[in-house]
Amino acid sequence: MTSPALSALSIDELTALRDAARRDHEALVRRGLSLDLTRGKPSARQLDLSEELLGLPRGHAAADGTDCRNYGGLQGLPELREIFSGPLQVPAAQLVAADNSSLSLMHDTVVHALLGTVPGATRRWADEPRIAFLCPVPGYDRHFALCERFGIELIPVPMDADGPDMDVVERLVAEDAQIKGIWCVPKYSNPSGVSYGDETVRRLAAMPTLAPDFRVFWDNAYAVHHLTDTPVEIADILTLCAENGSPDRALVFGSTSKITFAGSGVSFFGASPANVAWLIGHTGKRTIGPDKINHLRHVQFLRDEAGLAEHMRRHRELLRPKFDAVEAILSKELGGTGLATWSTPAGGYFVSLDVLDGCARDVVMRAGEAGIALTPAGATHPYGTDPRDSTIRIAPTYPEQEELEAAIAGLTVCVRLVATEKLLRDAGRV
Amino acid sequence: MTSPALSALSIDELTALRDAARRDHEALVRRGLSLDLTRGKPSARQLDLSEELLGLPRGHAAADGTDCRNYGGLQGLPELREIFSGPLQVPAAQLVAADNSSLSLMHDTVVHALLGTVPGATRRWADEPRIAFLCPVPGYDRHFALCERFGIELIPVPMDADGPDMDVVERLVAEDAQIKGIWCVPKYSNPSGVSYGDETVRRLAAMPTLAPDFRVFWDNAYAVHHLTDTPVEIADILTLCAENGSPDRALVFGSTSKITFAGSGVSFFGASPANVAWLIGHTGKRTIGPDKINHLRHVQFLRDEAGLAEHMRRHRELLRPKFDAVEAILSKELGGTGLATWSTPAGGYFVSLDVLDGCARDVVMRAGEAGIALTPAGATHPYGTDPRDSTIRIAPTYPEQEELEAAIAGLTVCVRLVATEKLLRDAGRV
Repeated sequence: MTSPALSALSIDELTALRDAARRDHEALVRRGLSLDLTRGKPSARQLDLSEELLGLPRGHAAADGTDCRNYGGLQGLPELREIFSGPLQVPAAQLVAADNSSLSLMHDTVVHALLGTVPGATRRWADEPRIAFLCPVPGYDRHFALCERFGIELIPVPMDADGPDMDVVERLVAEDAQIKGIWCVPKYSNPSGVSYGDETVRRLAAMPTLAPDFRVFWDNAYAVHHLTDTPVEIADILTLCAENGSPDRALVFGSTSKITFAGSGVSFFGASPANVAWLIGHTGKRTIGPDKINHLRHVQFLRDEAGLAEHMRRHRELLRPKFDAVEAILSKELGGTGLATWSTPAGGYFVSLDVLDGCARDVVMRAGEAGIALTPAGATHPYGTDPRDSTIRIAPTYPEQEELEAAIAGLTVCVRLVATEKLLRDAGRV
Repeated sequence: MTSPALSALSIDELTALRDAARRDHEALVRRGLSLDLTRGKPSARQLDLSEELLGLPRGHAAADGTDCRNYGGLQGLPELREIFSGPLQVPAAQLVAADNSSLSLMHDTVVHALLGTVPGATRRWADEPRIAFLCPVPGYDRHFALCERFGIELIPVPMDADGPDMDVVERLVAEDAQIKGIWCVPKYSNPSGVSYGDETVRRLAAMPTLAPDFRVFWDNAYAVHHLTDTPVEIADILTLCAENGSPDRALVFGSTSKITFAGSGVSFFGASPANVAWLIGHTGKRTIGPDKINHLRHVQFLRDEAGLAEHMRRHRELLRPKFDAVEAILSKELGGTGLATWSTPAGGYFVSLDVLDGCARDVVMRAGEAGIALTPAGATHPYGTDPRDSTIRIAPTYPEQEELEAAIAGLTVCVRLVATEKLLRDAGRV
């Protein structure tokens, strides 16, 4: 962002503000904090909500009598898939329940596309001269890292309030057959909190792509992670793809990592019958089946879609005060200064803070000096490069309330310090 | 095998034997059995031995205080790695504990070698014009299927009583730089039950290979799965590799699939520090960590190496009568006939039955007609092709004792039928 408000001040006034910020920062450093806002991890109190899981399951038989302790069942327990069918907008028959990480499912899907042949492809992606993915920015660093590791080119696409800029997306996929995918976090996006508008989803489903094997990686990580009384509903991408003649385009991912236990949950893959058969065909060479005991454990704990919703309400009770505190402190300390803007998400795990262009790295460094760990500036962009150096991702969920409030307050000091220093530098140059 | 005993009989005597076998087979078909000897699955009673796992863990803290419910810890719980360090002959610091499938670890190791660059390699395996693996036969069909799926060429190598024929192995790897690996099940091998002799292991570690990135895939699936009072000890491949100047050659795999729950156990990867760092570097793009709650559950259940040994003693109490029954019935019905030979394994999960050349497929078909399901003949060989059509893999663990005995007795009828028919055909041709 570029600043209006403070730039109207005189050099003397700006200098006074900078000096105050310097004193505040020195005091902050002396406090010797050790606070972590880096990763979207659930807090210990959130994990406590699922403590009952540790004593489950009762028995070991699935609804159809399957002994969950033994090998087999590549698609995962049907009764678990039923619970997540609605929230993920995937018919249970087209949903695969897997192990503890949806990132692994995304990784393996890319691997199988590289080393196998996805439905609609004329050859393996590994045999293409070049593979590129569109990356709406700001986005999720682990999506980008996964692609980089395979040499997949990352093409940033701007986000607006309704999701990726579809004019840009449509133009790119129409003219470049090597663009094989787009990363989407369609609801309460990481990190901006944006949810995709219906028209955005429709255009993603309907747009012509030069690549016959183009895939929308639909990482619906925050499908049920609402922070308000009015849950966001997004359009049904699988149905829209089918209706628009591209039934194999969308691959839906989800998990319970931020529902039950972050390291010990279950994950999901949903897609067209052809894509599901393709995935299971490859998965069958890799494993004899997922951890069905953990599936059964989750079924007995969550019970049904209503049980899941009630469980997420308890999460919200713990998370709402944290997101409220971030909003309140940022408003109090930075509101009206023109030094920063930020998201006020209706769900998900992150607040995106935009500081003056060229300031994000310095703010993260200054916070680090004060013992406040932030995700590296640039992590929200492909190759870790935010061209405007302005976006900072705040993860408010893991610290306890008091720690969080201290960290956000400290962060605003760093924003004031770096911004006033920059404005003075800029003024000096004029 | 080729038959001596019955071939000494006259045509009339053979015909009488065949007619008796036909009547026995017809009676067998009329019994309408439905028995399954196909896969090496633990029985329900074996799984019952680990029922306590369903109520574990107590608490959620690892020995170092880590909250196992949350993300992180790519190498897995140290205290779990300690328990398996001895049995797998890998220092705990060089052992990775992962999720529920060692097959997955083998698959992913091949993937990372194809799409990354293993220590010592000059390029990714995906960029090689051709990749081949040596496959001691008979061997494990899932090893072969995994390679086939990636277009890796499979080169069969004969097995003898001490493991693969090392003269053949040494010659092949010395002259062909495209041979990048060998599949080994070094203890109580699947399906022959053979354990590798010390000299075989030493030669595998010490042999010159034209490929600088050659790997021994050491699938020690049956490390603690003894059936006798004198557990087999195999030589320590990692140490031998290090001593012979090839520290990165061996990759050790193992799991608790046939120790605790087949679908819900833990798996292990052990190797040189360089290989471990390489694997974890790639795994870190795929997941934020393994299911540490399941690690903790296994630590509390197995306790230590002595607890593991005691648990395996209980498995042996259930398995020994089954393997004894197979041996007794095969001896009673086929002993001295010259129609078959078979293994008498000191551990592991399988008995390998060798029938007259050209008869294995027919025996499996005849057994199928009588409701006795066997692994397809040829499955123990690359591409499903047993050139002598003589090896049948018997998996005695899953059926209950009575069912197993009925199935093996029925199988011997099929062996007699197919063999006498063949001998008469051969005699007719002379």
